[in-house]
Amino acid sequence: MPNQIDAFKKRTGVIRIVGHRGARGVFPENTMLGFEYALASGVPLLEFDVVLTADDIPVITHNPTLHKQTFRDQTGQFISKELPIRSLSFADLGRYEVGKIDGTTAYGAAFPDQAQVAGLRVPALAELCALVKHPRHHAAHLLLELKSDPRLIDMRAHFVAQVLRVIRDHEVVGQTVLHSFDWEILAECKAQAPDIPTSFLSIASEPEFNLPDDLPAHIKAAGGALWCPHFRDITAEDVAYAQTMGLGVVVWTVNTIPDIDRMIDFGVDAICSDYPGRVQRRLSDRGLLWE
Amino acid sequence: MPNQIDAFKKRTGVIRIVGHRGARGVFPENTMLGFEYALASGVPLLEFDVVLTADDIPVITHNPTLHKQTFRDQTGQFISKELPIRSLSFADLGRYEVGKIDGTTAYGAAFPDQAQVAGLRVPALAELCALVKHPRHHAAHLLLELKSDPRLIDMRAHFVAQVLRVIRDHEVVGQTVLHSFDWEILAECKAQAPDIPTSFLSIASEPEFNLPDDLPAHIKAAGGALWCPHFRDITAEDVAYAQTMGLGVVVWTVNTIPDIDRMIDFGVDAICSDYPGRVQRRLSDRGLLWE
Repeated sequence: MPNQIDAFKKRTGVIRIVGHRGARGVFPENTMLGFEYALASGVPLLEFDVVLTADDIPVITHNPTLHKQTFRDQTGQFISKELPIRSLSFADLGRYEVGKIDGTTAYGAAFPDQAQVAGLRVPALAELCALVKHPRHHAAHLLLELKSDPRLIDMRAHFVAQVLRVIRDHEVVGQTVLHSFDWEILAECKAQAPDIPTSFLSIASEPEFNLPDDLPAHIKAAGGALWCPHFRDITAEDVAYAQTMGLGVVVWTVNTIPDIDRMIDFGVDAICSDYPGRVQRRLSDRGLLWE
Repeated sequence: MPNQIDAFKKRTGVIRIVGHRGARGVFPENTMLGFEYALASGVPLLEFDVVLTADDIPVITHNPTLHKQTFRDQTGQFISKELPIRSLSFADLGRYEVGKIDGTTAYGAAFPDQAQVAGLRVPALAELCALVKHPRHHAAHLLLELKSDPRLIDMRAHFVAQVLRVIRDHEVVGQTVLHSFDWEILAECKAQAPDIPTSFLSIASEPEFNLPDDLPAHIKAAGGALWCPHFRDITAEDVAYAQTMGLGVVVWTVNTIPDIDRMIDFGVDAICSDYPGRVQRRLSDRGLLWE
């Protein structure tokens, strides 16, 4: 099994922590500052989202479009029009700031402790790869989510190829797991990069995903290494069943202490959270480690 | 008025944020990691505590003794005996780790989101001075609290001299405000360093402090530049009165959103918080800035 999967699997006394979009509860999501914070605080597993610009630069942002709640234009105002990322060059995208959150929205209300920082931009995937390639971050691993953009649905092969080019150019293949809700993207990843493990995201509450009955068996048959269910979708039995097949189980997005406790009790391999410090505290209080 | 006091004073549309012990809600208190986090997230005003080791090194830690809730020995266990810092050399002190918090204590329960980090040590004041001297941190300012250690009560002049030596050696005089509950220490600071402004801490609920009736007038007469009352001790009128005398009013330690809102409404100059990101969010939501 590739080493990068071991990094996401539990061991005796060790449950892993994955920083969700860096550490969204603490720092603006999907920013270099958030990734640096997570790494500095001893959370080497980073989850984040990748889409493609008009000029084929893989960039780190959650939506296939600009996001009204977090993107500000050159006047400093939150944007009103959510242009597709695929319609903008990387240079165009760099004109927006993404270090603050619109507090008048439900999204803003959800993250009341998030630092508000001037001057942050959407990073290129290449910037994060360069960071984790630094010897001081040898323990860092990327849970790289390829976003299923309707505009890219007919060009999955092209999207995957652009992402792989960056990963290979920066020599971070051994630190990367390819992760998606779009399992056809993951099949394309397997075809183009059989050497890089894949991670299958699932959520039961969104019927368009049409989940198969025996999800772990399906993922195993598709060559997956990790199963990443929404934390509300699973039981302790589901976790154990997937693990007997050799899958690692990484649950998302687990933010409250009771939910963190329940996931520890379920025996998951890793907990993906907007508040990685809170998960560290909870594991620490229960006599557990994360590395 | 020295420039470093301007940094702590409000302006139209601007209320200042001071990171309490770095950012105790987010990172282990009084650690370089916490200070780096605060600076990286756009909080340039740092509050922290200084005491003296046996070998006269000013170090950054809150208590005159080791602190059971946060100090671990070389076995990784939280300590049981709180030795005086003044009895330990800087090398001795470096054998303790301070990056975790004992979750079984009330103190631990108070900071459920604090990152738990391996390898952190009590920093020397010199380390923080070197950090803020870096040109990228030209906006950084130190609210340097001289702790009133009963063991140092007869040697205030010596304590102040050791702190000033570090501040002057690192050429951060222009970024420093000297801060204490022990107003005799502040008198000693004025005597030895008339060029460095002083900040007077007060708390009404602890009777040993014997506060004078007209606190702002007393502070003004003593040559103080800032008044730092506990946030529960003041009214909007107190704030306005102190400000008409030219004092800056910095309140501590303000952690909940209703309390942050009340302090904004009172018109304070600066809010010292364990959660500087939360204060940024609240100011941002109210259309205010902090720099």
